[in-house]
Amino acid sequence: MFSELLPAGAVEARVILEESIVFWRGQDGIAYAIEDRCPHRWAPLSIGKQVGADRIRCKYHGLEFDGTGHCVHNPHGKGRIPESETLRSYPVHEYCGIIWLWMGWEEPNLALLPDLSNYLPDSPHHVAKPGWIAIDVPFELMIDNVLDLSHVALVHEGVLGNEESLAGETSFEQRGVDSVAAYRFTRNIPAPEYFDLIYKADGRKLDIWNNVSWKAPTHLMLEVGCTDVGGQRSDGTEILAHHVLTPVTKTSCMYHYLGAQCNAPSRSAEQMDAVAKRLGELRKLAFFEQDGPIVAAQFKVIQRNGEFRPLPLPGIDQAAVLWRRLYKRILKQEQARHPLQNVPAATAVA
Amino acid sequence: MFSELLPAGAVEARVILEESIVFWRGQDGIAYAIEDRCPHRWAPLSIGKQVGADRIRCKYHGLEFDGTGHCVHNPHGKGRIPESETLRSYPVHEYCGIIWLWMGWEEPNLALLPDLSNYLPDSPHHVAKPGWIAIDVPFELMIDNVLDLSHVALVHEGVLGNEESLAGETSFEQRGVDSVAAYRFTRNIPAPEYFDLIYKADGRKLDIWNNVSWKAPTHLMLEVGCTDVGGQRSDGTEILAHHVLTPVTKTSCMYHYLGAQCNAPSRSAEQMDAVAKRLGELRKLAFFEQDGPIVAAQFKVIQRNGEFRPLPLPGIDQAAVLWRRLYKRILKQEQARHPLQNVPAATAVA
Amino acid sequence: MFSELLPAGAVEARVILEESIVFWRGQDGIAYAIEDRCPHRWAPLSIGKQVGADRIRCKYHGLEFDGTGHCVHNPHGKGRIPESETLRSYPVHEYCGIIWLWMGWEEPNLALLPDLSNYLPDSPHHVAKPGWIAIDVPFELMIDNVLDLSHVALVHEGVLGNEESLAGETSFEQRGVDSVAAYRFTRNIPAPEYFDLIYKADGRKLDIWNNVSWKAPTHLMLEVGCTDVGGQRSDGTEILAHHVLTPVTKTSCMYHYLGAQCNAPSRSAEQMDAVAKRLGELRKLAFFEQDGPIVAAQFKVIQRNGEFRPLPLPGIDQAAVLWRRLYKRILKQEQARHPLQNVPAATAVA
Repeated sequence: MFSELLPAGAVEARVILEESIVFWRGQDGIAYAIEDRCPHRWAPLSIGKQVGADRIRCKYHGLEFDGTGHCVHNPHGKGRIPESETLRSYPVHEYCGIIWLWMGWEEPNLALLPDLSNYLPDSPHHVAKPGWIAIDVPFELMIDNVLDLSHVALVHEGVLGNEESLAGETSFEQRGVDSVAAYRFTRNIPAPEYFDLIYKADGRKLDIWNNVSWKAPTHLMLEVGCTDVGGQRSDGTEILAHHVLTPVTKTSCMYHYLGAQCNAPSRSAEQMDAVAKRLGELRKLAFFEQDGPIVAAQFKVIQRNGEFRPLPLPGIDQAAVLWRRLYKRILKQEQARHPLQNVPAATAVA
Repeated sequence: MFSELLPAGAVEARVILEESIVFWRGQDGIAYAIEDRCPHRWAPLSIGKQVGADRIRCKYHGLEFDGTGHCVHNPHGKGRIPESETLRSYPVHEYCGIIWLWMGWEEPNLALLPDLSNYLPDSPHHVAKPGWIAIDVPFELMIDNVLDLSHVALVHEGVLGNEESLAGETSFEQRGVDSVAAYRFTRNIPAPEYFDLIYKADGRKLDIWNNVSWKAPTHLMLEVGCTDVGGQRSDGTEILAHHVLTPVTKTSCMYHYLGAQCNAPSRSAEQMDAVAKRLGELRKLAFFEQDGPIVAAQFKVIQRNGEFRPLPLPGIDQAAVLWRRLYKRILKQEQARHPLQNVPAATAVA
Repeated sequence: MFSELLPAGAVEARVILEESIVFWRGQDGIAYAIEDRCPHRWAPLSIGKQVGADRIRCKYHGLEFDGTGHCVHNPHGKGRIPESETLRSYPVHEYCGIIWLWMGWEEPNLALLPDLSNYLPDSPHHVAKPGWIAIDVPFELMIDNVLDLSHVALVHEGVLGNEESLAGETSFEQRGVDSVAAYRFTRNIPAPEYFDLIYKADGRKLDIWNNVSWKAPTHLMLEVGCTDVGGQRSDGTEILAHHVLTPVTKTSCMYHYLGAQCNAPSRSAEQMDAVAKRLGELRKLAFFEQDGPIVAAQFKVIQRNGEFRPLPLPGIDQAAVLWRRLYKRILKQEQARHPLQNVPAATAVA
């Protein structure tokens, strides 16, 4: 969750991996996350409010809980604290403008959190406010979609690709046991609007690259850039983007995105505003009118059939095949280490 | 069903305990209730109309049925009455402005019907028209809610209770094998608006009592009153209320309520109108913005978890524990007496 | 599907017998129908477009398929055609303004297609544009409804029948192994509006006939006419109608209807327009306010009960009993011939 979505005094409910979780901040700003269920009458704690230094108070009867999931105050009778199951508490760490939540059963490994300082407002590369959208398809289909560089030519025709983009060549790389990358380079093509905008906005032909990588469990890193035909990449410009998919249920997810730019061309403030405005429009178009409907339609077909057995095409689908293979292996290993826990499993149909 | 909801000539459909039932009146005003399904093509009889002295006529083909569930007229061919299963017919008794329906398999015991004459328009205690609302939660959660006097302080803060109400003491009593009562008395507290209105409307502190009882299967009787601090109850005023919950499905119910007042303060007609108007607003506020959302949220948590194992708190939850225990015992006894019948069982999750 | 619903260049998705099917036309106008699922990433082909002489192109990655369900073009990499399951292809035949689709596992028998030339715009009997509506009830209930001539008196009172129509007599006939007919004749009754309109529009009494037949699997043929009391049928007028029900899912269908008139009275162009306008209104009224709500209500009762055991009435229900008996026998025979195929079965509850 982006930090700004949990201001002081706010209480927020989220469903993550099918678990209902309530977030709040203490008076010192520290964020807490525990199971969103008062053990007394099972009212959700998220309709309650923050009280005291670090507590959340149930709206139904006023029981108070701290960030460890323990009941610490009972306003009734003699005030005796009921002996109950402790609510599950989730380790939380706030870093680079994001509240990270640890859903696993092992100790949190903070070294896994990505350094996103390039994307923050005080970075010279900062271009746009981070954002997120709720999507009613399994997160796996979104990862497939982003790792698949070949759909850009037709689905995002005119915006991010065109018929000429079909000629691009893609190579693939497995990075260790938990990451996969795909690299695509297309030479000397009419510039799709997005590339024209971020570079020189003069309509000339360009060399274009789209690099994307997946890192377990649900991180996607993109480098999308262009330069003059035959030119050096370092003379062109490049958009960096970090996308994080948060599974909500087996059939829905939150899609978080952050963007930055390297070697942005020098422009007047008015020019920059106009470019930023148009880039925002293109991003909405690309998602809400292009990727979104197609992935939703794909998911309907999968649901109607009750299964998903895609047919990988040579030259374009290696990354989609590889990330699922690595992901399943990681899940299996985690399930073997924690056989009695409810380790999240891959979805049934996607 | 309130009598006024079934005027002469009207036909009404209801679902009660998962059974579809059609109600109508004969020409002499007597109400009938039978299964809402024409045995011919299974059209609902409730889209038909009342005909003759006491019949209902199916809209699809015109077969006519009487209040015993027998087909008594066939307008087609030689008019032969089809030999069919008889539709289930429900004993009906109209008393104190309510049409009471007997869903059980034993003879109706009219002595069980409550005397509600205090609540009728011609009673000196009459204060407001009876009403009802449809609620999409199991009736059990509503009984829990009303029997629980401790939630008033926080959920109805400012209206029926306040932080000072938390200090009230509650005692409990089992009455025979089918009734439970809870009594709460709170001394010398700033008057919540409801009590201020029904008593002297001058903002002074009051002593307040909330008494509630459950009687099997789904009757709730409330006595809610106030008096001067340290004064006699008989010098104060008291609202009587009778609430009846009618289960519709396992996850929905109808909530019927009747109210009366004893020792109402003497007021001008304008004052009485103003008070009645504000009390109506407070009742809507208490239910639609306070109890309603919280019970609906509680039920969502229960549904998501697939079970409900509340944690009773000493001093506040005895009534909620007791009524469920007595209710289950009564159901079990009835099921033992009628093993082959479809005796309504307690809901699975609530 | 009516031919006009698939113009040149159009791509249409339909669900028939629970199968998702995409329709398109080649450049020469020939219609094709194949499974609506790209085997690559399972996007529906119906969001793609027609390309080349006779192909459909997937919108997601540009794979192209022909009318046999084979992939014939891959725009990526070296263009190698993936070795995949062939998509199911459905034989299609266009005849009398309708695209007929063969869902069965045997060779299509074009001789079974009905000659509907009487209903086409260039026929002297043509009266109205064919139409269709989507209905959320099993197609079986609609066949029952149309074959049942006795419901007209009450359900369509004033429009197609009236209390006097109840006196009509109905006879029934089985025609071979796959067809059933019902004939109803009613003498000397006040003319319901529909008959008054199509004949002399002067309010006199009429003799009226309603004949209807079912032919497997889902064809309904109606002859509805009237003449002067005691007159020759050939001196009166008659509306012919052909209704085809296309099952969509087990609980929904498409209802297609075509109408023609024989011996239409001679009228001015303005009179004809006024009559046609009012007939259109009556058709909407008869379906959307009369049959539609009652059949939907009937289906709700059936769904709530989880089964359907109607009670046939002598003199009115023989056709409804017979068509289901013949239909089940045909299904059973087909299932015996194709035991391993997914032969569509009768619905569970209707």
